[in-house]
Amino acid sequence: MKKIRAAVVGYGNIGHYALQALEAAPDFEVAGIVRRNGAENKPEELARYDVVKDIRELQDVDVAILATPTRSVEKYAKEILALGINTVDSFDIHTQITSLRRSLDESAKAGKAVSVISAGWDPGSDSVVRAMLQAIAPKGITYTNFGPGMSMGHTVAVKAVEGVKAALSMTIPTGTGIHRRMVYIEVKEGYEFSKVAAAIKADPYFVNDETHVIEVPCVDELLDMGHGVNLTRKGVSGKTQNQLFEFNMHINNPALTGQVLVCVARASMKQQPGCYTMIEIPVIDLLPGEREELIAHLV
Amino acid sequence: MKKIRAAVVGYGNIGHYALQALEAAPDFEVAGIVRRNGAENKPEELARYDVVKDIRELQDVDVAILATPTRSVEKYAKEILALGINTVDSFDIHTQITSLRRSLDESAKAGKAVSVISAGWDPGSDSVVRAMLQAIAPKGITYTNFGPGMSMGHTVAVKAVEGVKAALSMTIPTGTGIHRRMVYIEVKEGYEFSKVAAAIKADPYFVNDETHVIEVPCVDELLDMGHGVNLTRKGVSGKTQNQLFEFNMHINNPALTGQVLVCVARASMKQQPGCYTMIEIPVIDLLPGEREELIAHLV
Repeated sequence: MKKIRAAVVGYGNIGHYALQALEAAPDFEVAGIVRRNGAENKPEELARYDVVKDIRELQDVDVAILATPTRSVEKYAKEILALGINTVDSFDIHTQITSLRRSLDESAKAGKAVSVISAGWDPGSDSVVRAMLQAIAPKGITYTNFGPGMSMGHTVAVKAVEGVKAALSMTIPTGTGIHRRMVYIEVKEGYEFSKVAAAIKADPYFVNDETHVIEVPCVDELLDMGHGVNLTRKGVSGKTQNQLFEFNMHINNPALTGQVLVCVARASMKQQPGCYTMIEIPVIDLLPGEREELIAHLV
Repeated sequence: MKKIRAAVVGYGNIGHYALQALEAAPDFEVAGIVRRNGAENKPEELARYDVVKDIRELQDVDVAILATPTRSVEKYAKEILALGINTVDSFDIHTQITSLRRSLDESAKAGKAVSVISAGWDPGSDSVVRAMLQAIAPKGITYTNFGPGMSMGHTVAVKAVEGVKAALSMTIPTGTGIHRRMVYIEVKEGYEFSKVAAAIKADPYFVNDETHVIEVPCVDELLDMGHGVNLTRKGVSGKTQNQLFEFNMHINNPALTGQVLVCVARASMKQQPGCYTMIEIPVIDLLPGEREELIAHLV
């Protein structure tokens, strides 16, 4: 069987774990890694791969896994789709997903390629659960409770506050989709903790949430990439009330994102040109193997 | 917007709840009910509907919801697909799903219609969760734990044992996909409880499970259509161990099945001719409403 040739674009946390998922997949071949400094200071685990600055330096790439910062996804995706190469990403700004989808749908169709966007765990696999629960209990409320786990976005926001030397923002679920922010910081010399803490609480990222800021001697000692979700729905099927559903995960955050990206890279090979979110793709397309066997084992 | 015209074929428990789900859906119109005795002794809630013996007596049916016994599904589906009408069912004999799919795929393509099979909650919505978890943690074990709830198949098997007047077989999960059978019976006059109990335990349906048979004065007083699932997976994403997932439901069994059938009836209108299981259909197709809005709210 011909293997799918995937390139990893960006080699931070997500890129690292996406590469591991590619190596573990029976139906993929690593076409290479694309990163800003190319082969310069190549980490040991990349020794056997082509590491380049531009995806055009790699041979026969079927699909590019975009492990770049969320805000660079659109730019990279457009360039790569224009080359006729599929792209997948875990773009996570919920309010901008439909506009990204429109924009990349056009690029994908022009390039006769497929783009799967917002494919991590939320947005991503959680979205599949949310959509299905909405369908099978059409009236009711779904709550997505995140954590405990590190919020990348909030951590970056804290780091941007003046006087912050190092930071970690943990998301703590308090139920019904409401979250507490536990912010751990090291303060730069010459700054007063109480003033820095007040500035963090006033930041738009935190102003609407219950936020606690705590000074610690070493933020690095608190870092753990575990995360979690508790997604609940109580709703009505037909005219029957009180149908109860719950989905829980306790996972290594970048490892799950990397694996989901590899799943949608596989699925991208089976779709018509265009841009898709995960709820628009049959789940069977996420899996390797023979169709009837999958149905026999999983349905 | 033109509504989807659905017929309900069979009017037992599932048919009753499927009709309620159709009535609650914004995009459906009830084309009528098909049952063995037609309009004879028509129940009050069917007063405003055409109740007929043969689906050909109904006008412009887009999709037939087969709420017949599982073993009659294939026969009815073939007849109805030949008329160019889509069919959906909740066929639940796990080992025969792929052969039913092959058989109905042929009929559906010949009739230029769509068939969605095994669409209840298990097989059905649980299958979507199982397939997705298999994809996002490709190595590991999934356990599907059912109950506590009434098993229709096991209850029918008990009723067939000589000396049983009335019966209820409850499925009790004991973890790791292993189930205890709690069987409640009324014994016919002239039969000895201990012998009837021994015959039940020796039945192929029960011989491999921990089975307890209990005599009660009135089985009917124990009947409750609540059911549940606890589906767990512990697995590996990429090369990262110990990724933990759990899906729980506590639901009215026929109400959920009826609702899922209506969801796949809707989805059947969007597929190419052929036969599908739920894991082969994008979850977005289960939902009414505008595509971009669904993506904005659910992804």
